[in-house]
Amino acid sequence: MGLTVDTINQRVRNAEYAVRGELAVKSEEFRARLAKGDKTLPFDQVISANIGNPQQLDQKPLTFFRQVLSILENPLLLDKEDVLLNGLGYQPDVIARAKKLLASVGSVGAYSASNGVPAIKESIAKFIEERDGFPADPAHIYLSTGASSGVNTLLNVICASKQSGIMIPIPQYPLYTASLALLDATPVPYYLDESKNWGTDLDTIRKSYEKGKADGIDVRCIVIINPGNPTGSSLPEADIRAVIDFANEKDLLVMADEVYQTNVFVGKFHSFKSVLRKMQKDTPGKYDKVQLASLHSVSKGMVGECGHRGGYFEVVGLDPEVEANVYKFVSIMLCAPVIGQCMVELMVNPPRPGDPSFALYDQEYKGIFNGLQERASALHKAFSEMEGVSCAEPQGSMYLFPTITLAQKAVDAAKADGRSPDEFYAMELLKATGICVIPGSGFGQVEGTLHFRTTFLAPGTEWVGSIVKFHKEFMDKYR
Amino acid sequence: MGLTVDTINQRVRNAEYAVRGELAVKSEEFRARLAKGDKTLPFDQVISANIGNPQQLDQKPLTFFRQVLSILENPLLLDKEDVLLNGLGYQPDVIARAKKLLASVGSVGAYSASNGVPAIKESIAKFIEERDGFPADPAHIYLSTGASSGVNTLLNVICASKQSGIMIPIPQYPLYTASLALLDATPVPYYLDESKNWGTDLDTIRKSYEKGKADGIDVRCIVIINPGNPTGSSLPEADIRAVIDFANEKDLLVMADEVYQTNVFVGKFHSFKSVLRKMQKDTPGKYDKVQLASLHSVSKGMVGECGHRGGYFEVVGLDPEVEANVYKFVSIMLCAPVIGQCMVELMVNPPRPGDPSFALYDQEYKGIFNGLQERASALHKAFSEMEGVSCAEPQGSMYLFPTITLAQKAVDAAKADGRSPDEFYAMELLKATGICVIPGSGFGQVEGTLHFRTTFLAPGTEWVGSIVKFHKEFMDKYR
Repeated sequence: MGLTVDTINQRVRNAEYAVRGELAVKSEEFRARLAKGDKTLPFDQVISANIGNPQQLDQKPLTFFRQVLSILENPLLLDKEDVLLNGLGYQPDVIARAKKLLASVGSVGAYSASNGVPAIKESIAKFIEERDGFPADPAHIYLSTGASSGVNTLLNVICASKQSGIMIPIPQYPLYTASLALLDATPVPYYLDESKNWGTDLDTIRKSYEKGKADGIDVRCIVIINPGNPTGSSLPEADIRAVIDFANEKDLLVMADEVYQTNVFVGKFHSFKSVLRKMQKDTPGKYDKVQLASLHSVSKGMVGECGHRGGYFEVVGLDPEVEANVYKFVSIMLCAPVIGQCMVELMVNPPRPGDPSFALYDQEYKGIFNGLQERASALHKAFSEMEGVSCAEPQGSMYLFPTITLAQKAVDAAKADGRSPDEFYAMELLKATGICVIPGSGFGQVEGTLHFRTTFLAPGTEWVGSIVKFHKEFMDKYR
Repeated sequence: MGLTVDTINQRVRNAEYAVRGELAVKSEEFRARLAKGDKTLPFDQVISANIGNPQQLDQKPLTFFRQVLSILENPLLLDKEDVLLNGLGYQPDVIARAKKLLASVGSVGAYSASNGVPAIKESIAKFIEERDGFPADPAHIYLSTGASSGVNTLLNVICASKQSGIMIPIPQYPLYTASLALLDATPVPYYLDESKNWGTDLDTIRKSYEKGKADGIDVRCIVIINPGNPTGSSLPEADIRAVIDFANEKDLLVMADEVYQTNVFVGKFHSFKSVLRKMQKDTPGKYDKVQLASLHSVSKGMVGECGHRGGYFEVVGLDPEVEANVYKFVSIMLCAPVIGQCMVELMVNPPRPGDPSFALYDQEYKGIFNGLQERASALHKAFSEMEGVSCAEPQGSMYLFPTITLAQKAVDAAKADGRSPDEFYAMELLKATGICVIPGSGFGQVEGTLHFRTTFLAPGTEWVGSIVKFHKEFMDKYR
């Protein structure tokens, strides 16, 4: 009778991934109906606020990046430099960069080395050095297919059995629990502190660790997402120091998911690597054995190139024999998409002041940044004024994660509908407005609290008004 | 003390992947030394005959494909159609295709649906229909990050435990054993028949299956690589029928790795899907429950775009609940690179006779095909004339897999060097000529036989002469 759902890999069956779950599928149904001219829905567009997918919505690609990639895809264009310059308005630095990248990669249609194009790893190392003020070694940098394949590689190496525990923040980006479910390893959840703008709380982390150990779990790694997904937080340096200090005490590998490092609205981004290096410098010897992996991606920030599946991770302090297994794992997956690797190079080495393409790049980059900040503020303001809703100040990333408090009548209606109250709320919002958000239960939340995650990527502010209107009607209906 | 090689995931530690192993690393060392001007090596270039990576060597990208991609990467070029047409010589069908693809995907910088862009899945379905003469349903087609991520997805769903057995050909492409090692599932090897141009032998398959069952293995799937890697075989329809018939009898899912389907020099390619449909038509009812997954890729054939990491798989006959888990798995990995998906579209829907770009496309395509065939023949001829070497006729794919017979003195020298005789031979070949091939032990071979795999992608025939010369000297030295 062949494979059935009862005989397949139950780890796949048990994995959950809400970001692309029922609500996302329903929203695509609505989109298809609208495209076919269906006029029976109470909205005329679907707004996918469920996924951080900037270029599906308003965000335009950065011109310099795409001009370079157009040449990498068709190097024969370099035979007509005059047409590129005069006919198409490409600047000389576009052509120079394309030539340089082609000299490094050969054809973007060829496999690269498994861990990435050597020259691109060197560019990344320079970027990290400039960002952190401490050296970086290309030998410990690995290009990946977006950050998620980097997470997959690292978790595959780290998790040896069901007993292997990985500390993950709650709320979390569900890639982590899904990957751990596939590996049959054990998540050791620790709650973030909503009252402190979703920062980390060391006591909470310590208690969670102790509970894991008491349950017989071999806790090996702590994951931090900074800036936060789904929370929109941006960690202060003190929180990062505390986490590293704790990881050092307990021999935990620190996995720093830093894909939103340029989406910071309040304060500044502190990379785990820079804070670690400062701690190592300030207290010689004490932090020498800290193991760190930090991840970055072209998918987020002002680059927003999710579809190109580019990213990298850097490891620090790994035992060479362990790192050899990281290399082996990436080699089995052959290599990351080469054009995506080139996108990483452009991200870490953009036009500089004085370069012919700088003015346009700078204008586009700041325009995107300001637009995101404005919409984050508008959405935050709307949430602040909504009955029963409270929301931390937007500090970073692309999301807000408001708390909602619903009346018992709404909770009962959800139960009758076979859903949790936050799922019910999100589904009703989708049906009424075409706006797709994700219920907090998809990320984890403190028992008894309700949230949803929304991006602030959609253009304009009209849709914010739709949420306000829906919320008022929902609250009135279930009062 | 943090992670050590003894505490990490031992499944990763145990996985082996010879294609990018010690010899490949050594060859890159030589390449770096040559690039730095080192004149002490007995060769002046490294020839990577270890990986099927056409565009690293002689193969040029197909112009139409890359012109379309250049526009997809920079859609602003469409504002200057006259420059594209008159300044750059792009044909109108290049522009039309780019517009059509952009209308389907939006930005190539946005995530697509997890299973791929719907319009691209429709193109693939049409391609399969034309190829096979039987309908294909886009709902059962999944875009993947090269074929290897498709293999990874399918094996993750199929393999439930150590007891789950997957029949794999020996010699095999080591992605299969490596993936099974990572999943801690059990390979059930069956030997291919070197005397029949590396075809399948049903008796051998049956005995291997029975042995697996006797060992308590729950055999679930049979993998076939056709055309063959590393063997260079191309299966006759009768072999395929026999495999399907056997899979039907034993309720095995058939995994058909058909990435070399256009690299066929002898006879014609028979897809497993077409043969299955014929069998279902000829004997109504009997083969209704056969489960099949077939994989294809942009990496091989005349396309040769490994670096773009594009591919797809089609599933037939899967239980819908099982298929829902295939979907869930791909959704956790977000989506395949979108520009790679567009490359798949171009592969399955190339210029047709009468299209403005057809003449150039056809000339390029045939030029590559003929070049590959000529080099395969030249290499085969050289092998035929070498002492102690025999090699099946090149029928398909990009490889030859000759048998070598070495004298006892060579076997002893290998032992003293801490290597198997085929590893020793390949390492000596690399050191003497700069040509990197992979020893047969990396793929599996009948006990007591020795082989190596070489691609025939490198340009010219000089390097073939180097192999002949090395071989003669090696044989003389160890006579």
